[in-house]
Amino acid sequence: MSKYSIGLDYGTNSVRAVIVSTDNGEEIGSAVFNYPSGDMGVVIDPKDPNVARQHPADYIAGIESAVTAALAEAKQVDPDCVANVIGIGVDTTGSTPIPVDLAGKALALQETFSDNPNAMAWLWKDHTSYKEAIEITEAAVAMHPEYLAKCGGTYSSEWYWAKLLKCAHTDPAVFEAAASWIELADWIPAILTGTTALNQIKRCICAAGHKAMFNQSWGGYPAIDFIASFDNGILTKARQSLPSTAVNISDTVGGLTTEWAGKLGLKEGLPVAGGAFDAHLGGVGCGIRPGSMVKVIGTSTCDLAVAPLSTKLSDIPGVCGVVPESILPGSYGIEAGQSAVGDIFNWYVHKLQPGKDMTHRKLDQAADTLRPGQSGLLALDWNNGNRTVLVDQQLTGLVLGLTLHSSPAEIFRALVEATAFGTRMIRDRMAEYGVPIERVINCGGISKKSPMLMQIYADVLNCPMLIASSEQTCALGSAMAGAVVGGAYPDFDAAAKAMTSLDEKQYIPIPENVAVYEKLFGLYKQLHDIFGTKEYAENQFNVMKELIAIREESRGT
Amino acid sequence: MSKYSIGLDYGTNSVRAVIVSTDNGEEIGSAVFNYPSGDMGVVIDPKDPNVARQHPADYIAGIESAVTAALAEAKQVDPDCVANVIGIGVDTTGSTPIPVDLAGKALALQETFSDNPNAMAWLWKDHTSYKEAIEITEAAVAMHPEYLAKCGGTYSSEWYWAKLLKCAHTDPAVFEAAASWIELADWIPAILTGTTALNQIKRCICAAGHKAMFNQSWGGYPAIDFIASFDNGILTKARQSLPSTAVNISDTVGGLTTEWAGKLGLKEGLPVAGGAFDAHLGGVGCGIRPGSMVKVIGTSTCDLAVAPLSTKLSDIPGVCGVVPESILPGSYGIEAGQSAVGDIFNWYVHKLQPGKDMTHRKLDQAADTLRPGQSGLLALDWNNGNRTVLVDQQLTGLVLGLTLHSSPAEIFRALVEATAFGTRMIRDRMAEYGVPIERVINCGGISKKSPMLMQIYADVLNCPMLIASSEQTCALGSAMAGAVVGGAYPDFDAAAKAMTSLDEKQYIPIPENVAVYEKLFGLYKQLHDIFGTKEYAENQFNVMKELIAIREESRGT
Repeated sequence: MSKYSIGLDYGTNSVRAVIVSTDNGEEIGSAVFNYPSGDMGVVIDPKDPNVARQHPADYIAGIESAVTAALAEAKQVDPDCVANVIGIGVDTTGSTPIPVDLAGKALALQETFSDNPNAMAWLWKDHTSYKEAIEITEAAVAMHPEYLAKCGGTYSSEWYWAKLLKCAHTDPAVFEAAASWIELADWIPAILTGTTALNQIKRCICAAGHKAMFNQSWGGYPAIDFIASFDNGILTKARQSLPSTAVNISDTVGGLTTEWAGKLGLKEGLPVAGGAFDAHLGGVGCGIRPGSMVKVIGTSTCDLAVAPLSTKLSDIPGVCGVVPESILPGSYGIEAGQSAVGDIFNWYVHKLQPGKDMTHRKLDQAADTLRPGQSGLLALDWNNGNRTVLVDQQLTGLVLGLTLHSSPAEIFRALVEATAFGTRMIRDRMAEYGVPIERVINCGGISKKSPMLMQIYADVLNCPMLIASSEQTCALGSAMAGAVVGGAYPDFDAAAKAMTSLDEKQYIPIPENVAVYEKLFGLYKQLHDIFGTKEYAENQFNVMKELIAIREESRGT
Repeated sequence: MSKYSIGLDYGTNSVRAVIVSTDNGEEIGSAVFNYPSGDMGVVIDPKDPNVARQHPADYIAGIESAVTAALAEAKQVDPDCVANVIGIGVDTTGSTPIPVDLAGKALALQETFSDNPNAMAWLWKDHTSYKEAIEITEAAVAMHPEYLAKCGGTYSSEWYWAKLLKCAHTDPAVFEAAASWIELADWIPAILTGTTALNQIKRCICAAGHKAMFNQSWGGYPAIDFIASFDNGILTKARQSLPSTAVNISDTVGGLTTEWAGKLGLKEGLPVAGGAFDAHLGGVGCGIRPGSMVKVIGTSTCDLAVAPLSTKLSDIPGVCGVVPESILPGSYGIEAGQSAVGDIFNWYVHKLQPGKDMTHRKLDQAADTLRPGQSGLLALDWNNGNRTVLVDQQLTGLVLGLTLHSSPAEIFRALVEATAFGTRMIRDRMAEYGVPIERVINCGGISKKSPMLMQIYADVLNCPMLIASSEQTCALGSAMAGAVVGGAYPDFDAAAKAMTSLDEKQYIPIPENVAVYEKLFGLYKQLHDIFGTKEYAENQFNVMKELIAIREESRGT
């Protein structure tokens, strides 16, 4: 008899449920529920592009709709599957905190606040609190620099405390009505298991550790005195509502309630795993392990790695998060990323629109016919700033080496190469601080669509590029958490061996390309350092000369 | 009774004759003769893109065709004009040397050599002698660095001695048959006046001084010992064929021969002025004078200035030529230029082809709606290297400040601004070395077609941009030389007052734009210096920050 687990994957515009065989990771049912509120599920403000909220009712509605539909599909494959579901896992966007009352009910579900965006979930990409983020960063630099060291050196407007402080500043009624603020990744497991009450709700280490300054080395969430330093203690109540421990994805937060069991047709008491962010469970669904970096390539990238807790990892400068157990239990979770990857290509193809009738696909194919170094072009992948390792949104893109003959495809390839150099900076920084990477597992649409890009990444990083077989690695990772808490496997290592797989197609470095990219990367790093840091003081005269020399060499002239 | 003069303007693909009133510069007749040989007049070699020659027979045929047709047109306006022509002036491309026999007959006009490109005129843009140019530069650095100081520090493959040495290396038969090599600018006046014989032919200071290392401070052409140092004296005979003096455009090289007077229907003995290069006489046709820079804006630019000989001008580092009387008698002629201007725009519009259905005109109009600094973009105008002041063909273009929103028109405007900054570097360098510029007179199609570009130039240079009325300033300048040698005016100052004029439309600096461009120019110069010279050793961290600050300020956010 096959066993199954359910993965619930809360994205920016919709929630997906998958029914996965715990034997081999096969997905036998899947369904998507699009959030009905706002603009594709996001409540926006035409007057302020920084606003991005979501209505918590959409999340609740999504559980029943998506799980029921996924199970219906699964029954076509295995009529007995419902009885054989052994657990549920959940991943969500984040930091997406929701203000709740003492019972854990989202304020936006109360009539008083139902239309107030400030009482809804503050979606990860809400940037209204950019000033509060600066305030928190400055306070941490002065009082607790160690808080920042774990999150790359700068607190972000996308994160928990900045959003709370912004609400306290702009909507005191909502802020005062909130008994606590709960991450979406914690709220869904709590809803399913009826553990939403303030004294029961579990907080996951992934959200707490990466976004809310939680670390066991200083006793959990940040010190009361630090939090109390903002606006005469306005955040103190919110801080006091938080527990001193956190759960990971191998922890069971509770059993499915009678009510939800009835609605979904599942067994009461079914174990529900601790939540985590989507990218982190995507890493799990890719089979992440020490030595393997997972790249989730989309409009931006999330680059994940793990290292055994026994390695006694120090902080990694410029890497957004190093948090024990945030990805895999028993390992440090390391989160980095590039602010724009697919977004740069989309800008080039759809906004700059180079070349008559040049589609994305045609540009990709034309770029694929070029040899490394041939164009003499070098770009910096900073059109949307640099998240890792510079943590600086005020950096911009650059294209250098232009001639009267530079073509649309040459520039496109240079942009792809720039993103490869950017990911190499991340890989090298991790290796330098004790997290060596031997192979990269890629997921996300681009990894399957562009062999050109994948080969460049293999050549620039000089390591194999593998592709995760699953097209829903986040949901798969959640289902793996459901399998572990359901008892199918003792740990995620065993679960990964059985439930994850890689495409047969692998991209292996081509030595002659590696040699050219080694030179180009040296020049990229030079530009990176002089434009992106304050430390570098030498002249840059060699840059163009060496580019031309490399180009001439590549062309054989 | 009106008097007239004839201007003969030898371009790259055709020769133009104009009949101009010496009273007011009005053109009453004009005709063009397209060179029949080769590809649009240029004899090329499919196997070597560096080859660019012209058949001397085309030049001769052009005299009769173009002058006769122009006179026919002029007679429609003034039936008595032919009898009232008082002089002829000539401008040509250059350095365009022609191998000739003792009588001054071009070798390609002899049956033996009639099909041999090496025996034809070596057109200015022939680059076959790039190795010889390096050889000559290195020898001059070692033996006579002063020779290079007058031509910007590097001898070019486009110039006289490099072409002779290349011919000596590759076609000894032609080289030995040549009694001398004559610039096209000298050959046409000699042909018209029957002074082609080696002991009669006059060499003009414009060609000799800018391209053949002629300077009175070292006794004219370069020292015999220097010329003899190449290939065991292979160039000695050619050097010995040259006189020790040179003429300028106010000198009469002779009178029209009986034969040519008959062919053209003009008076025998009509004075013919010393020749000069097209751009230099274009400067004259724009009314150049001390304090006024003339910009000839085309695919590249030629930037000309003059300074009284009494100023005791030193060499100007990075400026291609400072030659007494090369433009106006009694003044230093100063020649600088940008390697690509219109070519950069053409690359962008026709090669990169940004924006759906975006024409050059639409991009220009869209860029005109943007404010200085608004895009946050900064470019270097080096897509074809940098001629002045860096004299380095191995520099390349750069665009910096790119975001996910950078638009086709924003980048176009950044490229236009880059060319403005490039011309400001030239203007500032001239001023620094004793040639202050108070106004700029522009000519060339772009100056009349793009008010957007002209206003940016006015704002970046913070000085008025004027436009020459004439659309044929080179031919007009030649006709002014004809007017001066014909006695209509005592000097070019008087001729310019009467015969040149400016468009009513002037571009005056807008103070608020000037202020923004002052900041942007500071950043341009920073990039210019760190990427273009070896001297600069500070970090560049501020560049992107300041660009963003300027952008935010411009947007008022």
